[in-house]
Amino acid sequence: MYALQLQQVEEAIKTVRGKKFNAVYMIACGGSKSTFGPAQYIFDSESDLPAYVLTSNEFNYRKPKQFTPQSLVLTCSHSGNTPETVQATQAAKDMGCVTICLSNKIDSELWQAANHGVYYGWGDYNPAYGKSAMLYRMVFGVLNELSPNERFVRAIKHIDALETLVPKNKDLFAQRAAAWGKEHKREPIIYTMASGEYYPEAYSFAVCLLMEMQWIHSSSIHSGEYFHGPFEITDYDVPFLMFMSRGKTRYLDQRALNFAQKYSDKVTVIDAQEFNLGDIEEDLQSYFAAIIMTPVARQYADSIADHRGHPLSVRRYMWRMEY
Amino acid sequence: MYALQLQQVEEAIKTVRGKKFNAVYMIACGGSKSTFGPAQYIFDSESDLPAYVLTSNEFNYRKPKQFTPQSLVLTCSHSGNTPETVQATQAAKDMGCVTICLSNKIDSELWQAANHGVYYGWGDYNPAYGKSAMLYRMVFGVLNELSPNERFVRAIKHIDALETLVPKNKDLFAQRAAAWGKEHKREPIIYTMASGEYYPEAYSFAVCLLMEMQWIHSSSIHSGEYFHGPFEITDYDVPFLMFMSRGKTRYLDQRALNFAQKYSDKVTVIDAQEFNLGDIEEDLQSYFAAIIMTPVARQYADSIADHRGHPLSVRRYMWRMEY
Repeated sequence: MYALQLQQVEEAIKTVRGKKFNAVYMIACGGSKSTFGPAQYIFDSESDLPAYVLTSNEFNYRKPKQFTPQSLVLTCSHSGNTPETVQATQAAKDMGCVTICLSNKIDSELWQAANHGVYYGWGDYNPAYGKSAMLYRMVFGVLNELSPNERFVRAIKHIDALETLVPKNKDLFAQRAAAWGKEHKREPIIYTMASGEYYPEAYSFAVCLLMEMQWIHSSSIHSGEYFHGPFEITDYDVPFLMFMSRGKTRYLDQRALNFAQKYSDKVTVIDAQEFNLGDIEEDLQSYFAAIIMTPVARQYADSIADHRGHPLSVRRYMWRMEY
Repeated sequence: MYALQLQQVEEAIKTVRGKKFNAVYMIACGGSKSTFGPAQYIFDSESDLPAYVLTSNEFNYRKPKQFTPQSLVLTCSHSGNTPETVQATQAAKDMGCVTICLSNKIDSELWQAANHGVYYGWGDYNPAYGKSAMLYRMVFGVLNELSPNERFVRAIKHIDALETLVPKNKDLFAQRAAAWGKEHKREPIIYTMASGEYYPEAYSFAVCLLMEMQWIHSSSIHSGEYFHGPFEITDYDVPFLMFMSRGKTRYLDQRALNFAQKYSDKVTVIDAQEFNLGDIEEDLQSYFAAIIMTPVARQYADSIADHRGHPLSVRRYMWRMEY
């Protein structure tokens, strides 16, 4: 299967060869949308191509003027049948855009709607061929086609290392995750906080893991925004879970953390600086840490779900009714 | 003072004449950042110039590669002394960018750091010369310089009407705002919801009015994201305050609203479709409704503050310590 996945990426990348794009639109919903966050950060940092992440119906109902047949469109849906994302993908392909989708389901509606599909594995699947890994293979591949750079080649080379780096870093935080779940199982609200390429993890942890899968109130706070409103909510009994950057915006997190720790007794940090990143060079470390954060943080959700007797798979509306 | 303000805008706009920009960066924090939201939506809809809104320190610590001396930089700080925003403005000016700031304080540090300053009034000041109005004068003025269009000219012409439209629409919702404050005064958490050019209002209502000024837990949910995670938090006793679009993304709000109203007994809507917009033509109505939403919604915050005996001016950290 890995060979097929690599071939899918290669074919997708081949279609951008020699093309000149005016922008990249990454379109998806919820957790899939948040997966695109670090990719947007990478485009912002490494390329002068405008890169946007939009929730699918925002794209469907108010297409930006900058969106043209010269736009590159990346979409993602785990099931491959999210109607808004299928619609966006089809509209982009019909308009003549290069459209590439990521999905856990080959030949899904999404797959049919796109020019190219890239499969990713899930759960116990090798994380070097999981969602974020396949996205990175595609993004660094596209960047290298558009403007070749040895850094992009190195980045692609390192992706295979996720197979060992992900379990290593999960182990590093396993005990802390177990303790966090017990300590927080009676909390009615838990805030998440992050910045830069880690902010999307704070968002998806809040809306998917806590609100959707645990029915615990939550909100993701950007560390840079914390002092401009949200910090007034801080109190001794208000819990925060921070996904701390090892990249350029670490100072923002550190400053917010110093304050939060002073006035709340319930601040937890998952510090990417602690991650074991093997032989990934410094200029690429934070990009990789941002996607290793997801499986590491997932353990915190697994733990709280276990302690609350509320499996992450439970839903009251999703899959149970039409909406 | 109005004449001076118009002159400031005119001088700022004059500096973009004949220039070719690669992008617009709108940089600020908290409520000031959220003021730029509708402007970003307008750039997205009316121009092929990439337009970004960034919290100031995100800009300071990880300048995007696309940011160059050919970028147009708009910044905003009410007091004119937000350190992150002053720093961003100074850095942009030093780099050779055209930098224009909005502030309630003439000759503030921010004012000194920018090429051009535009003053806006506050509180009882004529809303046609308030923050959003001055921003719109600038944005439509810039758009019209870069690519003349009668729609932009019409938009500028309508801004004066805010003087009467704002109080009219405030009156329209005054009784409902008063009732909402009483009904919600014991709520520990209140969610806000919106989409499109109204989403920034949901964000600022959550982080500035509820979290900062009322110490009430909150989070802003994008209506398009609601069904992809957040909706599972919906329950009979979970309150939502929706800022409903009369523009292109109204369908997203309507769909989220239909669901929320079915499973929560505490859904409140401020529907921009009800706004009296005088003789503003349909193609411009939603742009104006999005900024009229702010003073209309503010009444809901005034009311809950009054019923809770917790004035909007109270802070426990801001202005009371170094951080």
